[in-house]
Amino acid sequence: MELTFLGTGSGVPSKKRNVSSIALSMLQERDEVWMFDCGEATQHQILHSTIKPRKISKIFITHMHGDHIYGLPGLLSSRSFQEGTSAVEIYGPPRLKEFIELSLRVSETKLKYNLIFRSLDQNVLFEDDHLTVKVTKLKHGLPSYGYIIEEKESIGHLLPDKLKALGIKPGPIYQDIKNNESITLKDGTKVNRSDVTGPPIPGKKISILGDTQATDTVIPFIEGSDVLVHEGTFIENDQELAQKYYHSTGNEAAEIAKKADVKKLILTHLSSRYHSDDLSQELEKLKEIFPKTFYAEDLTTYQI
Amino acid sequence: MELTFLGTGSGVPSKKRNVSSIALSMLQERDEVWMFDCGEATQHQILHSTIKPRKISKIFITHMHGDHIYGLPGLLSSRSFQEGTSAVEIYGPPRLKEFIELSLRVSETKLKYNLIFRSLDQNVLFEDDHLTVKVTKLKHGLPSYGYIIEEKESIGHLLPDKLKALGIKPGPIYQDIKNNESITLKDGTKVNRSDVTGPPIPGKKISILGDTQATDTVIPFIEGSDVLVHEGTFIENDQELAQKYYHSTGNEAAEIAKKADVKKLILTHLSSRYHSDDLSQELEKLKEIFPKTFYAEDLTTYQI
Repeated sequence: MELTFLGTGSGVPSKKRNVSSIALSMLQERDEVWMFDCGEATQHQILHSTIKPRKISKIFITHMHGDHIYGLPGLLSSRSFQEGTSAVEIYGPPRLKEFIELSLRVSETKLKYNLIFRSLDQNVLFEDDHLTVKVTKLKHGLPSYGYIIEEKESIGHLLPDKLKALGIKPGPIYQDIKNNESITLKDGTKVNRSDVTGPPIPGKKISILGDTQATDTVIPFIEGSDVLVHEGTFIENDQELAQKYYHSTGNEAAEIAKKADVKKLILTHLSSRYHSDDLSQELEKLKEIFPKTFYAEDLTTYQI
Repeated sequence: MELTFLGTGSGVPSKKRNVSSIALSMLQERDEVWMFDCGEATQHQILHSTIKPRKISKIFITHMHGDHIYGLPGLLSSRSFQEGTSAVEIYGPPRLKEFIELSLRVSETKLKYNLIFRSLDQNVLFEDDHLTVKVTKLKHGLPSYGYIIEEKESIGHLLPDKLKALGIKPGPIYQDIKNNESITLKDGTKVNRSDVTGPPIPGKKISILGDTQATDTVIPFIEGSDVLVHEGTFIENDQELAQKYYHSTGNEAAEIAKKADVKKLILTHLSSRYHSDDLSQELEKLKEIFPKTFYAEDLTTYQI
């Protein structure tokens, strides 16, 4: 899995940071890309990445502020123009449907694929054999949400020595063994998968939170995440602004990362009032709280 | 006056051309910037220009296709965030109001200035002492319009020799003479402005047309324009596509420029299927029809 930051700024675009959007590419795992938020010009940022809009299958919106949704009508239209034909599921607050449908209607845009709107009414939004997506409410000026993507355990690696001992040579049979709890060989021998594979491989856990004041209520949801994406709009010195505008400082986010025992913290939604130097200095302080802290930059990709 | 092309592509953005938007800067004349269309990421293009969003006072929309309007909610929001406080008038088709108001409402955006929506019901949309704006209907898949901005004649230049003969020396009195039809000097002499100024200076005429099939019906409106901005989505070889999608070829636009006896033709809304080389070759052919033909490029400015 790969996490690509398409926009890491807050409120309005700057030359260096576009407004919010993140792409989670799962091309190897399921040939899909999932998006989290879609600020204006997300489709423009995609032009400078390896992401193909037709691979986007789900879009999760954290909240309704313009810098998180104004890129949706354009991205959806262009996806259709560029031969996207498979359905797209959109998860978000209720008025999202009204905004998208009206935008497409007034512009007489007819998509070549179906849009499916999903509400955030239940804690588990999606589940299949490979992963679950959960949602949790945050603390912002209007309803804002965080999404937790959790892969399920997968079958352990095949153990060549054990297979060899059973007289099984490498070949297509390896895949058969991996795909089935047990198989029976031509000579009648029964092979249990659990006898010839290593321990189950734990799934990854990715938590992507929308705009929020730092709140400990998220900790049970994000606990142990491989990656926590948290907003860090302000630096510690501007704590009052963070409080006033329902945002977080980087150090509040770092404290949460520490308490939730996550493996990596990526801060995004960064105010354009700070220069690179300000953030470099701040990062040193943040690492004293939580060493694995990073500031997201536009068009950077993290392997997960 | 200056005409800056912010987006010169058609339908979807490419790395080289954004979707449609043009800014007419009249900073010296009236300290205002007027916009024509506002595709997605127009505000991003503005970041790379000298235009200040708070100077934008009027926005004219040619038609409702997404590549001409999806940048409006973001531009209007950011203008507010960046201390724009004066009202903005928006001229366009009826559903524009619905689109903008809903976009702002669902995102809980409160502008710090008034939006005034103006319909296109009358031929003369705006008139003051200095200019008029007229609208004319075009020929497209949905209602599409062209805007004609026509400056009024202005007072001719003062003639120093004639002023000197009347015993008037350079000073603030020059401005008084220019501002009044006649003035009376301290010694009782009456000075008629018309006696001491050269011939009236003709105003400029700028015609900016939205998406359209080439149509001679525009000629009476655009006749004699200093600049005609016409779409040239396709090249001559793709005439069938132009017909099918209600667009024009460059050579059709050049024929119209010739018939309307304009001074300059700028082609925009160019399909991304053509490379620079294709357009360079095409331009040679277009110049045989109408020598003063130009292909617009993103972020280029024409002095008018």
